[in-house]
Amino acid sequence: MAEVEFWYEFGSTYSYPAAMRIERLAADAAVGVRWRPFLLGPIFKAYGWNDSPFNIFATKGRYMWRDLTRICAADGLALKLPPVSFPQNGLKAARLALIGEHDGWTPAFTRAVFAANYAEQKDIANEGTLREILAALTVDADAAFAAANALDNKEALKLQTAEAASRGLFGAPSFTIGDELFWGNDRLEAALAWAQRA
Amino acid sequence: MAEVEFWYEFGSTYSYPAAMRIERLAADAAVGVRWRPFLLGPIFKAYGWNDSPFNIFATKGRYMWRDLTRICAADGLALKLPPVSFPQNGLKAARLALIGEHDGWTPAFTRAVFAANYAEQKDIANEGTLREILAALTVDADAAFAAANALDNKEALKLQTAEAASRGLFGAPSFTIGDELFWGNDRLEAALAWAQRA
Repeated sequence: MAEVEFWYEFGSTYSYPAAMRIERLAADAAVGVRWRPFLLGPIFKAYGWNDSPFNIFATKGRYMWRDLTRICAADGLALKLPPVSFPQNGLKAARLALIGEHDGWTPAFTRAVFAANYAEQKDIANEGTLREILAALTVDADAAFAAANALDNKEALKLQTAEAASRGLFGAPSFTIGDELFWGNDRLEAALAWAQRA
Repeated sequence: MAEVEFWYEFGSTYSYPAAMRIERLAADAAVGVRWRPFLLGPIFKAYGWNDSPFNIFATKGRYMWRDLTRICAADGLALKLPPVSFPQNGLKAARLALIGEHDGWTPAFTRAVFAANYAEQKDIANEGTLREILAALTVDADAAFAAANALDNKEALKLQTAEAASRGLFGAPSFTIGDELFWGNDRLEAALAWAQRA
């Protein structure tokens, strides 16, 4: 079965609609999805950015929020300004999403974290927020946090981020099919079509 | 009739497919198009960029060319690397495009300049290239250049660029319907749908 790798960062606005719609579109296209959380911070640092592009390029930031508002409205997704201003700290959530692969709860966890951040005005850097999400998925939160914070998982997230950078990723969401890179929620359809043909 | 304003810059890669397809899509949507050439250089300078984003963010620049290649292939448009590396100097062409509004040759001229730059490997900063294009449109090139280089037209292009900045534009192509801004060739369909509803 053809597969697309879905690279996302919990602090990335456009990763939210992508996470909410990718499985439906991928199923329609008969393409599998590999969920790949990573961190944009280290990649942005390489551009000399130590803040969210939303803040650095304020005019563009204002536009992007308006654009995201239109997109979420068209997709029937709730959208509210996160309680914590950009950049968002998605480190804990990303470590959990990575460890969730072993037991298969990464997609549902990811969607719940995006909804908490962008629809429910919850702070996703707060452990309590993440514990509530895990509990709703009937995942043992203590065990999940212990595994997420273990050295090998921290290292695995660093490696995942380094792989993203080495494969030419510079933003999120991104989609890869082998060496073919697609960037942006608005390229999801094209990425799935590419995977079908590949 | 509903109308969309189409803001473009001759040195902007994604403005090329937008210019080539906007009239067909707008006609299908029964939306009029006002062609609005402007300059991105002064707007990028406000971000502290004195070079093309293609060069400043090389990884992203490489991706954008690959993305544009896929888009042009899907649209049946030829695409070749311009003979002059980025940033492109579209000043003369923009002044001509602006003066062409009076006699209605701006759309055809614009498409021909984009084709020269992105498909025919001609230098659009070269007056000879632009004269050939005008001649093919049976426009009096001497008269067009004289009007394009007159002080009032130079000033009009500056005003058009200032209007773009004041209306929140930060890239090209952009589409506006009143205060509603859409950025990117990939937002053309959404902009036309918005104009239809407005």
